[in-house]
Amino acid sequence: MADEPINVAADQLRLFIERIERLEEEKKGIADDIKDVYAEAKGQGYETKTMRQVVRLRKMAKDARDEADALLETYRAALGF
Amino acid sequence: MADEPINVAADQLRLFIERIERLEEEKKGIADDIKDVYAEAKGQGYETKTMRQVVRLRKMAKDARDEADALLETYRAALGF
Repeated sequence: MADEPINVAADQLRLFIERIERLEEEKKGIADDIKDVYAEAKGQGYETKTMRQVVRLRKMAKDARDEADALLETYRAALGF
Repeated sequence: MADEPINVAADQLRLFIERIERLEEEKKGIADDIKDVYAEAKGQGYETKTMRQVVRLRKMAKDARDEADALLETYRAALGF
């Protein structure tokens, strides 16, 4: 058929889009789970704004440590030990 | 011990924070998977900006359908059929 190449491309594109949509759904599900944990903590009397700040600060500290570790690895590799 | 109540609260708070951090890690993993799919599609010659637009438009269409369905359910429930 003359239009077969177009159909094949459309199928491939559709598969890519559907894979992305499934992953977006999963991501949304996890984002909802995170909201649920904050709601549960709030129910226990915790201030969720401060908790979000804690999560952010711990992430920054972890990122800084990871970056320092990666740089150390690079220097060690460069010096071969 | 006089400080036990504080320790208990600290443990509870730590558990909440750690649950959130684990979920954030999972969410990050999925976001990376989504990036990988776009990169793969780009490698096949697809324009990822247009793909993101397609995903957005399909989501808007789905949200509109879901909203209409929910409203229909509400009306049916109100009328008891």
